[in-house]
This record gives sequence, C-alpha cells and structure tokens, in this order.
Amino acid sequence: MTTIFDAPEDFATTALAGFYAIHARNARLVKGGVVRSTKVPRGKVAVVIGGGSGHYPAFAGYVGPGLADAAVAGDVFASPSTAAVARVCRHADQGGGVLLGFGNYAGDVLNFGLAAERLRGEGIDVRVLPVADDVASAPVETPDRRRGIAGDLVVFKIAGAAAEAGKSLDEVERLARLANERTVSFGVAFGGCTLPGAAGPLFTVPKGQMALGLGIHGEPGISEEKIATAGELAKLLTGKLLAERLAGTSKVAAVLNGLGSTKYEELFVLWTKVAKELAEAGLEVVDPECGEFVTSLDMQGCSLSLLWLDEELEALWRAPCDAPVLRKGMIIAAEPATEEIIEAEGRQSFSPASSASRDSGQCIARLIGRIADALKDAEEELGRIDAIAGDGDHGQGMRRGSAAAFDAANAAVAAGAGAASVLAAAGDAWADRAGGTSGAIWGLALRSWSNAFSDDERASDAAIIKGARLALDGVTRLGRARIGDKTLVDALVPFVETLEEQAASGKPLSEAWNLAAKAAKEAADATSSLTPKLGRARPLAERSIGHPDAGAISLALTARVAAEFLKEADA
Amino acid sequence: MTTIFDAPEDFATTALAGFYAIHARNARLVKGGVVRSTKVPRGKVAVVIGGGSGHYPAFAGYVGPGLADAAVAGDVFASPSTAAVARVCRHADQGGGVLLGFGNYAGDVLNFGLAAERLRGEGIDVRVLPVADDVASAPVETPDRRRGIAGDLVVFKIAGAAAEAGKSLDEVERLARLANERTVSFGVAFGGCTLPGAAGPLFTVPKGQMALGLGIHGEPGISEEKIATAGELAKLLTGKLLAERLAGTSKVAAVLNGLGSTKYEELFVLWTKVAKELAEAGLEVVDPECGEFVTSLDMQGCSLSLLWLDEELEALWRAPCDAPVLRKGMIIAAEPATEEIIEAEGRQSFSPASSASRDSGQCIARLIGRIADALKDAEEELGRIDAIAGDGDHGQGMRRGSAAAFDAANAAVAAGAGAASVLAAAGDAWADRAGGTSGAIWGLALRSWSNAFSDDERASDAAIIKGARLALDGVTRLGRARIGDKTLVDALVPFVETLEEQAASGKPLSEAWNLAAKAAKEAADATSSLTPKLGRARPLAERSIGHPDAGAISLALTARVAAEFLKEADA
Repeated sequence: MTTIFDAPEDFATTALAGFYAIHARNARLVKGGVVRSTKVPRGKVAVVIGGGSGHYPAFAGYVGPGLADAAVAGDVFASPSTAAVARVCRHADQGGGVLLGFGNYAGDVLNFGLAAERLRGEGIDVRVLPVADDVASAPVETPDRRRGIAGDLVVFKIAGAAAEAGKSLDEVERLARLANERTVSFGVAFGGCTLPGAAGPLFTVPKGQMALGLGIHGEPGISEEKIATAGELAKLLTGKLLAERLAGTSKVAAVLNGLGSTKYEELFVLWTKVAKELAEAGLEVVDPECGEFVTSLDMQGCSLSLLWLDEELEALWRAPCDAPVLRKGMIIAAEPATEEIIEAEGRQSFSPASSASRDSGQCIARLIGRIADALKDAEEELGRIDAIAGDGDHGQGMRRGSAAAFDAANAAVAAGAGAASVLAAAGDAWADRAGGTSGAIWGLALRSWSNAFSDDERASDAAIIKGARLALDGVTRLGRARIGDKTLVDALVPFVETLEEQAASGKPLSEAWNLAAKAAKEAADATSSLTPKLGRARPLAERSIGHPDAGAISLALTARVAAEFLKEADA
Repeated sequence: MTTIFDAPEDFATTALAGFYAIHARNARLVKGGVVRSTKVPRGKVAVVIGGGSGHYPAFAGYVGPGLADAAVAGDVFASPSTAAVARVCRHADQGGGVLLGFGNYAGDVLNFGLAAERLRGEGIDVRVLPVADDVASAPVETPDRRRGIAGDLVVFKIAGAAAEAGKSLDEVERLARLANERTVSFGVAFGGCTLPGAAGPLFTVPKGQMALGLGIHGEPGISEEKIATAGELAKLLTGKLLAERLAGTSKVAAVLNGLGSTKYEELFVLWTKVAKELAEAGLEVVDPECGEFVTSLDMQGCSLSLLWLDEELEALWRAPCDAPVLRKGMIIAAEPATEEIIEAEGRQSFSPASSASRDSGQCIARLIGRIADALKDAEEELGRIDAIAGDGDHGQGMRRGSAAAFDAANAAVAAGAGAASVLAAAGDAWADRAGGTSGAIWGLALRSWSNAFSDDERASDAAIIKGARLALDGVTRLGRARIGDKTLVDALVPFVETLEEQAASGKPLSEAWNLAAKAAKEAADATSSLTPKLGRARPLAERSIGHPDAGAISLALTARVAAEFLKEADA
C-alpha cells in the first residue's frame, strides 16, 4: 500500500516537487506540471503529455530531450484541470505548435480537449492525441473507445523523436497517430493498489487468481483466471496481441511494463518467454524495454505492449532520448566487444596419481555417494529446521551440493585422480552447485581436508585426522563463526576435538570417528538452547530459540553416515 | 508477492537471461553472471561486484562504462559460489587486477574471499571490498560487523569511476575503501517480501507499524514503531545518519532507495522532507538519487544512504556512467535553459461592463455562494455515493470547485466584471480547482452558459434559459456521455428540457426552474437502475447497480438550491 505521505491531498503536488528536486537536470517545475529544463530550439514542435498522478514515471519522468517537452500532472488518478493543461502548454510552446498526448479517459479527453480549444483561441496550434492501446477495454472495431495504458511510452517516444528531428506539427501528429493505431497492449493484475490515506486497496484479486485486462486506475480487469506460470502468461499476453497483428509486419517494438509491485526480475523471467513466443511468430523485436514505465501506485501486475513497426517508425523508436523513464544512446563512447566469450574454467585435468592414492580416491567417492544419499533423504527435514529461523533452503542446498560432489568425485576417479584431487574436486563442485553460505563452508571444508592428502600415497588414518583439523581451521578462518554462534561450527569443533583425542588415546579410526560423530550429534542437539549470532535480526533470533541449527544437524548426520561407512570398511 | 516464474529454483538464472536479452547493449551473459559487452582498455582495473539475486538492479544492472565491469549473481538471497565468482573475474580481468565488491554478509565474505585466494594463486591481483554501510546492524565502533545495503550503489559508483579514470588497483582500492568508510545507511520496512514459490512472506510487519533497521534478505529490523508521516520519517532517517556525521564535512551524496513496493512518488514526497533536514543541518547535497537501486524482491520500505564527500570523492560521484541502474552525463547535447519561468496565466482583467450586467454578475456570485454552501454540507454524502463505484472523491471535488468558483466570482465582481465574465471566471476556477472529470464538466457547463450572457446587459430570463441549453450542448459535445450512461447528463437533459418546455408554456422562470429541478432529481434517483457506460470494468459496474450516480445527484442538488434562490429573488 501507499505508506509515505503527510497530508494525502498534497501527495501529488509534493511528489512532483520531489521529482523536480531530483531531476532538475531534466525538468523545471511550473504550476501543475514540469517543462524541459534545457534549451529548446525556437519553432520546434512541443510534445506535451499528462494525466493523473500515481503512474510515475508517467508522466513527469518522460520529460527530456528526444521525448516530451512538458508534462501536466493531475491529482492521483485524476485528470489535470483544463487551466493546468493550458498553462503548461503556454510554457512549452516554442512557436512550432503543440502535440498534446494523454490516455483515452473521459476526464483527460475533456480537459486536454478544452485546453486545446482555449489555446487555439490564443493563436497556438494544438493537436490532441488520446492514446488508446488497451485491447481489453473495447473491441478492435471501436479503437477510439480503448483506454491508454503502457502504450503511452511507445506513442510518446515516437512523437518525441519526430519533434526532436525538427519535423512539422502536421508530421509529428501524423506519426504519433500512426504509432497509436499500430500499438496494442494487454495486461494482467495480481493485486490492487491503495490510494494515499485509504484504508484498503481499490480492488482485490482473490489469492491464486489473476485479473485479465487490468486498468491503471484500480479497474480490476474483465475476467479472472488461475495465476499462470511465466510460460503460460507469455502465451496469454502475446496471444491477445498477435490476434491483432498488422498484416505484413515482421518487426515490433515491445514494452513489458510492471505496474508497481511486480518486480524487475519477474519481468525478466517473463520476457524470456515472451521473446520466445514472438520469435516463433516470426517477429523480430527491436530494442525491447522491460521495467516500470506506466505504473499504478503499488499495483501488482504487468502488461505487454507491441508496436507494429514500419521503417519510419523503427528509426524513431531507435532514436536517442534522455529522460528519467528512458535513456537511449551512448553517454560514454563505447564500442561493442567482438571477441567470443569462451568459458574459462579452472583446471580440469589431474596430475598423475599412484595406484594406492587412486584406491583411496575411489573410497572417498563411494563415501560421498553414501553421504549424498543420506542428505537426499534428509532434505525435507533439514529444510523444515532451517525454515524456523532462515529461508528454509538448507536441505535443498545440501542435497544439490552433495550430489554434485559425488558426480565430480566420480569424474575425478574416472580421470585417474588420487585422493587429494578427488576430495578437492568434490569440494569445489559442492560449493559451486549448492551455493549460499553452507555450500561455501562445505566446499571449503572438503578442499581444506584434501590438503592433508596427496595424489602419491594412500589416505592414511593420520592424514584423515589431520584433514579434519585443517577443515575446521579453514572454516573458522574464513567463515568467521565462533563456537556458540549457532552454526555448523558448534558441531564441527567437538567432532574434530573428540576425533583427535580418541585417536591419540590409541582408538582405531572407525571407533574414534564413531565417538566423534556422537559428540557432534549431542552438540548439534544442544544448539537448541543457543541464540543465533549477532547481526541476525531480533525477531528471527527469538523464533530460533528452542530449535537446533540446521547446519550443525546436517554436519552431525554426515559424520554418522561416515562412521557407518568406516565401520563397514573395517569389517 | 513474487508471482511470475516457472520453476522457482530456476528463477535467478532465468531472470539473468532475461536481463541479458533486454540489456545486451550493456552486458554479456557468462555462466553465473554478466560482463560488460563493450570494449574495455587493456590494463584497466576491473570492478567486479555481486551477491545473491532478488536485489535488481543490484547487481547485474550495475554493469556498464563508469560503473562495474562484471556482476556475479547467486540464487535468490544466496551468495554466488566461489567458482562462479572466480569464473566471472577471469572474464572481466584486463590485466589491471580486480576489485571485488560485495555486501558484508557471511556467505559473500566467504565465497568472494575464497575466489580472491584462488585467483591470486592464478596470478591475478584481487582486492576484496565488503560494503558495510548499515548503521542499524552494528555499532559505530565495529564498522566491519555492519551489513551492506543501498550503500552498494555509492561505493561501487566511486570504485567504477576511479577505474574508468584509469587509476591503478591500489588507488581504486583506496578510494573504494574511503567511500565505504564514509557511507552510512538506515532503513525502515513496512512489509516483507515473498520468495518465488513461497506461500507467505519471509516476515510481516503489524499493520500500521514500521520496522526500523531493515535488512535486504527478509531481516525485518531491530525494533518497531508506529508508521510515521513523511516529515517524521525524514527526521528519523536523517537523525540516525547525522549522528555519525564526519567532522568538517559540508557536502554529501545521497541515495533514497526503494525496497521494491514503495514507489517513486512516495520516495519523491519523502525526499522533499529529507532535503529539508539535510539543508537545516548545513549540508549541501550533490547529485541526489531517488529510486530503486538495491531492492529486496517486493519488500515495502526504503532506506537513506549518505556519503560524506571530500573533493576527490565528489568528482568521482559526479563522473559520467552508463549502466541500467544509473546513467549520468548527457546523451543529447543540451544546454540548461536560463530564462526565468514566469507563470503565464490567461486573462485576469475584465472588459468594461454596464451597471445592469454588473448587477446580474453580483447576483450570480451570490447564487454560486449558496451552491458552494450546499455542496460543502453534502460533501460527505456525495463522497459516500461515489465510493460505491468510483474512488469516492466526488464530494471533495464539488466542494473545492464550487468554493473556488465563489472566490473567483467575487473577485470578478470586485473588478467590475459583468454577468458573462463573472460566470466564465467562476467556471474556469471551478474546473481548475476541482480537477478530474466532474470539475472539467462543471467548468465547461458554466463557461458555456456564460456565452448566453454579455457584459453589456442584464442576464434576462431568456438568456438564462438559452444558457442552460448551451451548457448541455457543451457538456455532451466534449464530455462524450449520452443519456443512460449513468452520468450527470442523465439529470441535465431532463432539467434543460423541462426548463425550456415550462418556460415556453409561459411559466415564470422561478416556477419553470423549480419544475426542472424536480425533473432532475427524479432522473438522478432513477440512475440507480442503470448500469454504467461501457468501458468501465465489469465488477465495478455490477457494484454500482442499485446505486444512483453521484454526478447526477449533485447536479440535482445544485438545481434545487438555485430554484430556492430564484424563488427568494422573486419574493
């Protein structure tokens, strides 16, 4: 919801003042709007646009060279008054006439139309252009009943580029009308927006549903459907627009617009699917844009706009512009790089190994396979424990990491690697595939452990015990966690210490390991009574008291699996 | 919540692929990240940044000339692996060494640190820079325990500008560390974010509360307070940061960052108050930025970052750059305009009027005063009716418009205006101050009506009746509504027709008007049974059946008030 304001009724004018304070390089504040802050040649056609507030970057964010000369801003979701439109136009007029662009809504049609009449009476040539791109709002037979949504960006960009190129008002009007006739949009909403000061949203969409054919003033859409996957959504959006494809077109400009709370990365995900659909329809996409261009406060949803290009429109769409909403063209002269990107990986071949060390390597690979099986079984449980105080992905990370480590260990074995190389390769793969902190910790632990081995000799009991200490050192040196921080270190320290003590007291490795694994399990369970380390947010910390740490639990589990493996190897 | 995805576990990689498809001019895709797509001089220091996904434009959006050379992207909110960091660095290295920038989180410190060690082993000089700007995460005495939030933009911009200027790795590192030491941030959260595929948000903030000291991975903050006004919030944010003001500084760079669902216009509103606080503290703000730079999926909230500038840092902060997150410098050569902006209003002086016409003008002003009183009383009721199918601002608009019309009419009377000018001035003021569609309609109606009058003669009964027809013509010509559309036209048409009929049948004006007002009231009530005109969204249309149209009701009310006025004038 809209949360930041002082007096709700001052929201729009204060927002405009703040815009000006930030974007003074682009725009100057006048009563009811903004005008370009840079010199404009005498006689240039002025492109003046506008509408209600609540749609930023529409409309003030469109002001700048190559786009709009001025923008008029009404109250939130309300048309600016006739007087405000006329006033802003008087500031913007350079003697070349004015093209007035706005969305096709009753209030805007009225106010911009009346302002145009007034200005004509004052001797300023003004043409009006109501943008009407939303295919959901009226059938194709009555295009002038269609609303304007994110097609605004497309149509205003064409008009702005034509005016910047010094074309006459007749020409600018012709090109803008052509762009308007050839621009189609369709959108969906996942949730409504809340006006400043309002207690609730203007509309709601039932959980799990999406509303088709949204408007940008809280109009919720014309029908509802179950929320689609990105792939299905791309088919829906492109399908509605391709149904109106202009015969003979092979190129389109495309704008994937977020309404406010649907974020960039979601739009990027969707764009990969939209691009696929357009390519399959035989269309070449020219300079696609993906982001927030016409929003509706904090509304959730998105829309796709397409402009069926011809040569003339393509050149205007590609032309440079420099406004907060869109910047095209180069600031710092930069040539495209031409060399191919070749994936530069670290070493993949292994140094020659002795037969004894290769045997140990095989043994290590088998053990990692056993660990991977156990972690796969434990994935859900580890995720559940992690979700109490974290984001619940620990089980998934451990499963992915150990499986990748097993594959890498097998590949190393197959390539004839010795004990040190097999374990190092497993560690690197674990870290690379598991990701996150625990992936790095496990990768580091295995790689550090491998430093106790060599590719010339068999992995001796002494080397294994020394490796455990190296792993602990590596983890505490780079991981920064201390005992008591409620991390895997809480289980790793007693494990390593017990292993060393029991081995020093003469116990065989499998027995010493078994006792160490038990110590790790006890310590992991005891993390229930600990609070997480500093830096964690307080409420999460409180939630996690009484629950063991997922990292410590998974370490203890792994130690137990290894203990069983060693016992079998003894037998 | 995060809504658009196919498989949640592919979200981050698919988003990166989509980013590349849109921003190929800036970046090329490599495994685990992106690198600059433009030629980079041999020997230039490579600035490589990264972290988890879910923070766009951080980090891929930072890649471009004058900012970062490459970005590494982990899974959502998870550190990229050591191998991924190392791999992306190998692509970015131009022989000048690498500055590795990332937020100060355990997983990132570990993976970027390990990658740096690996790369040094391969002969690449790498320096690590964990950004630690969040003052809420640790006390000033332990700056290296602080988290990195939106200070990323500030620190990476300085590093990128230094590298672009051809400085050595030692120098780039020194400047980046200096920027990091001098950058402080503080933020608040109004609501949590939802991971792709998750059923609910990572945390919630109780309604009406805000959490102080947010993190950008779902960490909800260190304490909670009642949501502040924009002015109070600005004091809170600047207060926390000014407490750590570096002695002797008089200039700051500032970044007001939105977390995802807190929108631009809210940030602009807040910025006006932040700017005031900083000015009062005697600080000059250099090139402030206000927008989304480091987000946390769809989280609601914002943060303020300040960099205490010295001369060296100021030059780097101001330097041009060209990345999706930030573009500084000119694309189209444009000189600042220098002429003063003088508010150009329409005519304010009135042509000379006859005494008889001035009398009529006074009478009109008094009538408008009566109407303004009645509409003020009816504001709440009209708002209530409008809220059923609209945004509930009709009462407010009518109150504002009529009050402004009364003031303008009085001013015109005082300036000696005649009947035509008084009514025209009232209409213009009504439209300008009420805004929206109904403001324009009323302004248009009054102005059209005034065309039946002159400034030479008294407003005769015949002129008044002719004016009513002109008002109706004006409204239907430009307002496009037809009878039956459930608008004010439904009441205006029977009003005008009854007025004309009754006057034609010889009734005196006050009686004819009274009957016309009754017809208007009946028609307004009858709009309950109508569905709103096409173009409205279906669910709203359904809601409004059974309810009268607010515009028709307010017209009928006004007609009745005027009827009473005329009756009194007769008496």
